[in-house]
Amino acid sequence: MKILIVGASGTIGSEVTKVLEDNNNEIIRAGRNGADVTVDHTSEESIKKMYETVGKVDAVINVSGGANFASISEMTPELNQRGIDSKLKGQINLVLLGKDYVNDGGSFTLTTGVMMDDPIPLGASAAMANGGVRSFVKAASIEMPRGIRINSVSPNIVEESWERLGGFFAGFNPVPAKRVALAYKKSVEGAQTGQNYEVY
Amino acid sequence: MKILIVGASGTIGSEVTKVLEDNNNEIIRAGRNGADVTVDHTSEESIKKMYETVGKVDAVINVSGGANFASISEMTPELNQRGIDSKLKGQINLVLLGKDYVNDGGSFTLTTGVMMDDPIPLGASAAMANGGVRSFVKAASIEMPRGIRINSVSPNIVEESWERLGGFFAGFNPVPAKRVALAYKKSVEGAQTGQNYEVY
Repeated sequence: MKILIVGASGTIGSEVTKVLEDNNNEIIRAGRNGADVTVDHTSEESIKKMYETVGKVDAVINVSGGANFASISEMTPELNQRGIDSKLKGQINLVLLGKDYVNDGGSFTLTTGVMMDDPIPLGASAAMANGGVRSFVKAASIEMPRGIRINSVSPNIVEESWERLGGFFAGFNPVPAKRVALAYKKSVEGAQTGQNYEVY
Repeated sequence: MKILIVGASGTIGSEVTKVLEDNNNEIIRAGRNGADVTVDHTSEESIKKMYETVGKVDAVINVSGGANFASISEMTPELNQRGIDSKLKGQINLVLLGKDYVNDGGSFTLTTGVMMDDPIPLGASAAMANGGVRSFVKAASIEMPRGIRINSVSPNIVEESWERLGGFFAGFNPVPAKRVALAYKKSVEGAQTGQNYEVY
């Protein structure tokens, strides 16, 4: 399979790349400093250019996207906008602008996150984006054209990020990024659609 | 209680108004053609102006917000933008810009919808917005300041809209708007927070 991974160099993205490379797939690494193709998924023009460069693929995976961490007391529409532009719209636009580039029976796999199910302080904007993506995936799955599937993966905080981010996740039990990566493999190489794989 | 209802004149909004008026609350009706105060919740400036006009309240209810209905094949980032600006950001900005206008122990009640749980064709953009609001509410509830609560109500298609919209909801069992309105009353006059009341 020809698999486009947006955010391939990140903590989870690099494990996703590894677990899919094992299977003799052709991987195209995309990202802001993508090894094979650069893309800023907050820009529609940049997404279009990426797809034009890459051409037809069998699977699109997105493991990129951010949101600002701020308490509700400090949160403003401006701070919330990053979650909307990046983690929410960025991911959805990869689907809306990419659906014609995915072969029949191919797949999209997006990324949500545990904070929507198990909220943490400062995480409301990220939770909003995660919840929006999960519901979009579930609803879009019933009418994707040409047998194209769509799922999302909802990772817990990963062990590899624990030292940097663990302070935000009191009492959480981090999971290895390798285990999270398996859910992307299940989405791409399996046959399910409309799922949000919780790796908690 | 002083209760600000955005979208008070709509199908559900008017029932919410009725069920809360029964209890000798002071209701302020807001909306694009609001009886008491006008607001366009897709505009931050308009939201700010509304709160400055109304002043302190005990509860803010939003029953307004839209999204474009389009199949995934036809959906574009532009068509999806209405759901983001109106049903998603519009509701969240009512909270972010209004939190200082809500009295201690007051509440926000937003509106999601059944399509995020029970998807229908053409409904992915609305589902996205609904899911984003639900997750924002859940996450925001754990850190709202001064004992302010926040919930959402997720209505099924209502009987009053069945003739106009029933064609989109094959096999759904519509509920009376009056029953949906009770969930808003529970949110405002009860003590729960972080809930998404499903009226299915």
